[in-house]
Amino acid sequence: MSPTSAPVKIAVLGCGTVGTQVVRLLLEQASDLAARVGAPVELSGIYVRDTTTPRDAAVPVDALTSDAQALVDSSDVVVEVMGGIEPARTLILRALERGSAVVTANKALLAQGGAELYEAADAAGADLYYEAAVAGAIPIVRPVRESLAGDRVTRILGVVNGTTNYVLDEMTTKGLDYDAVVAEAQRLGYAEADPTADVGGHDAAAKAAILASLAFHQRVGIDDVYCEGITAVTADDIAAATETGRVIKLLAVAEQTDAGVSVRVHPTLVPRDHPLAGVRGAFNAVFVEAEAAGELMFYGQGAGGVPTASAVLGDIVSVARHKAGGGKGPRESNYARLEVLPMSAAMTRYAVRMSVPDRPGVLAAVATIFASHGVGIESVRQMPGKGHAGLILSTHRARESALSATVEDLRSTDAVNEVWSVLRIEGEL
Amino acid sequence: MSPTSAPVKIAVLGCGTVGTQVVRLLLEQASDLAARVGAPVELSGIYVRDTTTPRDAAVPVDALTSDAQALVDSSDVVVEVMGGIEPARTLILRALERGSAVVTANKALLAQGGAELYEAADAAGADLYYEAAVAGAIPIVRPVRESLAGDRVTRILGVVNGTTNYVLDEMTTKGLDYDAVVAEAQRLGYAEADPTADVGGHDAAAKAAILASLAFHQRVGIDDVYCEGITAVTADDIAAATETGRVIKLLAVAEQTDAGVSVRVHPTLVPRDHPLAGVRGAFNAVFVEAEAAGELMFYGQGAGGVPTASAVLGDIVSVARHKAGGGKGPRESNYARLEVLPMSAAMTRYAVRMSVPDRPGVLAAVATIFASHGVGIESVRQMPGKGHAGLILSTHRARESALSATVEDLRSTDAVNEVWSVLRIEGEL
Ligand SMILES: NC(=O)c1ccc[n+]([C@@H]2O[C@H](COP(=O)([O-])OP(=O)(O)OC[C@H]3O[C@@H](n4cnc5c(N)ncnc54)[C@H](OP(=O)(O)O)[C@@H]3O)[C@@H](O)[C@H]2O)c1
Ligand SMILES: NC(=O)c1ccc[n+]([C@@H]2O[C@H](COP(=O)([O-])OP(=O)(O)OC[C@H]3O[C@@H](n4cnc5c(N)ncnc54)[C@H](OP(=O)(O)O)[C@@H]3O)[C@@H](O)[C@H]2O)c1
Repeated sequence: MSPTSAPVKIAVLGCGTVGTQVVRLLLEQASDLAARVGAPVELSGIYVRDTTTPRDAAVPVDALTSDAQALVDSSDVVVEVMGGIEPARTLILRALERGSAVVTANKALLAQGGAELYEAADAAGADLYYEAAVAGAIPIVRPVRESLAGDRVTRILGVVNGTTNYVLDEMTTKGLDYDAVVAEAQRLGYAEADPTADVGGHDAAAKAAILASLAFHQRVGIDDVYCEGITAVTADDIAAATETGRVIKLLAVAEQTDAGVSVRVHPTLVPRDHPLAGVRGAFNAVFVEAEAAGELMFYGQGAGGVPTASAVLGDIVSVARHKAGGGKGPRESNYARLEVLPMSAAMTRYAVRMSVPDRPGVLAAVATIFASHGVGIESVRQMPGKGHAGLILSTHRARESALSATVEDLRSTDAVNEVWSVLRIEGEL
Repeated sequence: MSPTSAPVKIAVLGCGTVGTQVVRLLLEQASDLAARVGAPVELSGIYVRDTTTPRDAAVPVDALTSDAQALVDSSDVVVEVMGGIEPARTLILRALERGSAVVTANKALLAQGGAELYEAADAAGADLYYEAAVAGAIPIVRPVRESLAGDRVTRILGVVNGTTNYVLDEMTTKGLDYDAVVAEAQRLGYAEADPTADVGGHDAAAKAAILASLAFHQRVGIDDVYCEGITAVTADDIAAATETGRVIKLLAVAEQTDAGVSVRVHPTLVPRDHPLAGVRGAFNAVFVEAEAAGELMFYGQGAGGVPTASAVLGDIVSVARHKAGGGKGPRESNYARLEVLPMSAAMTRYAVRMSVPDRPGVLAAVATIFASHGVGIESVRQMPGKGHAGLILSTHRARESALSATVEDLRSTDAVNEVWSVLRIEGEL
């Protein structure tokens, strides 16, 4: 570092779980950061709603301000860790228009209004970095955006929501039902008081949209993502998964085929020996398949103030380095013109679990219905009950629309008492 | 991409396993690469020893040349995939001095002569990228160099050599001895005719040096790395590991403590439920512990022409983007002034396996020897034999020098028949 380098001024917007740790690390590691950036890194201020709220001891009270615009206008780098759409969006746009670099952890905003932000960054030649927006501390945005830039990503499967992974894990290991586990998770602070964004799959869907956009060089927004949460998963589903050598994970799936791009979030059966099956509790993992690289997996802590701050700081070093020494990170790459497929056109495998009358000919009748929609049966497993039998049929790859039509027919034939559940399968050959 | 952008000229030095795939992908994906770089990417030539050797159909024969200097002097980006020290070193220096960007997969050269290359790159303000030099297709250099630039890496544990991982895996699953497995691996092409660099740990040591340099912001060369291969690992060691709930992996270990930095490669006991324990066959994985991010793991294919080419291409896109649009990647970060510790100062845990006479008082005598050197015993496991007993003592963390002195004493007491093996333990609390 040349001793005369002007300091890079960093504004932090938001000082909650993540912001507090970003501020702490920025101050504590100032000399290391300066050496890595090539110039001193200076906290120019922290924007919060209420400057009088008591804060963590690591937060310098005199840096707090409620004048966001003045702070943004006097900083080289703006770190947005407030969350929500507004005023985050307006402040980020204001920063980018000034040519300031922006680092954000805001997956909701990126997945909903990313296009506008990417365009503003591009127009101003400004950096927009967002490693922390997907899978917390895990470096995944930079690897997909840069390391795999010479490859063709064909599929991403991600365990990207710690709350749902914890809930499914507890249901699996303790045999408990969904409601009991969620209540306990709330009590322990592993689930929010209003857990909808997590258990409904919306948080994972935002991350899926961001990953798909990066991987496929194409804009994919949250509205392009089919989203099904874990609220309907039962203890019986889990037991049946265990029976068939699988575990249930809420997966973010993004895949590219000749037909187009499919991006979706749903509870998914994963074979027990798949690398994603072993991802426990609040950990996240992203499994990537690329034409040349083959299978890759990235694993680590997906949330939490300190781990997430690590990802934010990594981005700060990159953009501050550009401010101090010139250069710029990659622009949004959105040249691809692939069709984003509706869920009905997605191709995957399924496990259909149902109750059938305990009499001869039933399996033939069921098999005929699958065949009539061109859905191949890969395996059948019977689980005897009283006066009825439980059946788990695993299919070959089939179109979602064909599977839906099959299930509709199963529901109206007297060869089936009840269709208990339909779960998609990923990660099996 | 503006249609008037001048093409970025790429020279490829070497056209073997990796080079052939780099050339193929460069040509096949030219239009995708141009979109990602922001300018056309043009193969300016391929340097080989013998231009008349028959090549893969993907290699354009008229691009082959045996005039490396002319090729280097007429290119914007030089991709070195020849291997070896010379002429790779001289050609890379020549390219950097001209201000050309360099992408290399050459771990041996980086670990031995990296300092000179980094300085040349810095002096010329040129990019020097080397993702493919560590763990093939796995993005690990960029994550450590950039994503974790705002964090403090405390430890790296890597399964970074596929050949040795395959050999240890086969010994474990088939109960075979080292020599039998290596012979079979050579027959199948999984091990080189001369496997010394792999089984002796030197390949892993080069990667350990590169990773440690990046992680600790400090130059660590191959001579700083303690290196012990797998040639002495026996079927009995593997059986004993299984007995105690562990697997044996050849690990590259780089850790930073208050005392300094320790970098080493050796066969290591890893608990069966550690994420690294499940890394099978030719796969590689790098486990990273950082103060804020916590535990991270990166997993994928560590070698092979096509996977390795993916990493090379990712680097080509980064440096070509800088050539086309301005900017530069991070400089070498080597500001830290930590002591690189000798192996005798390393702290870790150990499993000492020995044969003792089958009589009372033996355990007390053995325990006294450990205690006299301040080495705490964590657990003892007895395995009965005929006229003697097998003992496995697992220790608490201790200094390597204290453990060596302990073993020396064990070897000279009549309370011990023979010390069969000493293996270090990582990944246990
Ligand atoms: N928490 C995680 O583990 C995690 C992980 C990855 C990504 N993220 C993302 O990081 C961002 C921040 O998350 P968080 O958990 O740190 O949130 P948080 O704890 O709720 O903190 C939000 C902070 O932003 C401030 N803020 C919010 N709305 C504001 C407004 N309208 N005007 C002014 N200040 C406002 C709040 O100010 P007051 O303090 O005055 O209320 C508070 O300091 C979100 O985008 C989230 O998705 C979080
Ligand atoms: N193979 C892998 O899986 C892998 C993985 C990661 C990193 N790497 C690294 O990638 C590099 C290349 O490995 P590789 O497996 O592709 O090697 P390789 O198959 O032996 O190919 C080496 C190529 O370089 C050329 N070459 C070698 N020495 C030369 C010299 N003195 N003058 C001119 N040309 C020379 C050879 O020319 P001719 O064809 O005329 O003989 C050949 O085309 C090495 O640094 C290696 O460590 C390899």
